[in-house]
Amino acid sequence: VITLKPKPLTREAFAPYGDVIDTEGAKLITINQGFAEKAYDLANIDVATEDGTTAVHIFTASPRPTPTAITLMERHPLGTQLFYPLQNRPWLVVVCGDPHDTQSFEAFTASGLQGVNYAKKVWHHPLLVRDDHSRFLVVDRKGEGNNLEEVEVRARIQLL
Amino acid sequence: VITLKPKPLTREAFAPYGDVIDTEGAKLITINQGFAEKAYDLANIDVATEDGTTAVHIFTASPRPTPTAITLMERHPLGTQLFYPLQNRPWLVVVCGDPHDTQSFEAFTASGLQGVNYAKKVWHHPLLVRDDHSRFLVVDRKGEGNNLEEVEVRARIQLL
Repeated sequence: VITLKPKPLTREAFAPYGDVIDTEGAKLITINQGFAEKAYDLANIDVATEDGTTAVHIFTASPRPTPTAITLMERHPLGTQLFYPLQNRPWLVVVCGDPHDTQSFEAFTASGLQGVNYAKKVWHHPLLVRDDHSRFLVVDRKGEGNNLEEVEVRARIQLL
Repeated sequence: VITLKPKPLTREAFAPYGDVIDTEGAKLITINQGFAEKAYDLANIDVATEDGTTAVHIFTASPRPTPTAITLMERHPLGTQLFYPLQNRPWLVVVCGDPHDTQSFEAFTASGLQGVNYAKKVWHHPLLVRDDHSRFLVVDRKGEGNNLEEVEVRARIQLL
């Protein structure tokens, strides 16, 4: 059994997979007559393939048993997919370069102030949370075409 | 002085101005092998005018003095603008049909679980919050063109 140990989520470590959505390290400007600060242009939303447009959803997730068996990975060939937590609680991200290459799996712990935007075609695990009723704002693609690929992970991989 | 009394934010009351982002009353499906529920397609994101694309920001807002003088309204002629709160705290929305028609102003109290997506060209006040360091995920347009109009409100209007 291969055990994934989550690393802290940073822009640098996550760069092969997409964007980290975080005010830390972001470009900042003061707006609204001084009553707000804007951390701007935090994600590369890319949904235009095959005439797609931007969709917004709220996902409410429950924890899986731990250690969590990683048995399925998915990707979206036609668009990016962004998750931002709606409570300040850490959550988990599992990605890989190739779901049949166990060495290519990586796990990250996102803080409750960090979201991610998976680039197109990046293999990732469905939402992984530690707390019941964990809510996320999701920004992805709507439109024609098959935008979901799922693959069974045959190796035994677990997340602590 | 005209005083605006905020009404509860509902999809019906807000329909002339855009979308209310809320899991209540939304279409729901179970996803992620039963470990998540998806309230889907909650907003009509419309940013394509003049080759615009979707941008994502985080705004951190501070309260204004109360009662709040409504002295400026703004609108975005080239795209929608979505705000979703990142803390479960009520916040305020002020919109109008015509900034020179005091009778056209309306105010709403959004719960901490409700966002809004202003339709293109809808006059709205910049963020209005009751708590310091109120954070919002914002989804709007990036691209060429002038996407901001601001107008001074000459009548004396205040928000309780």
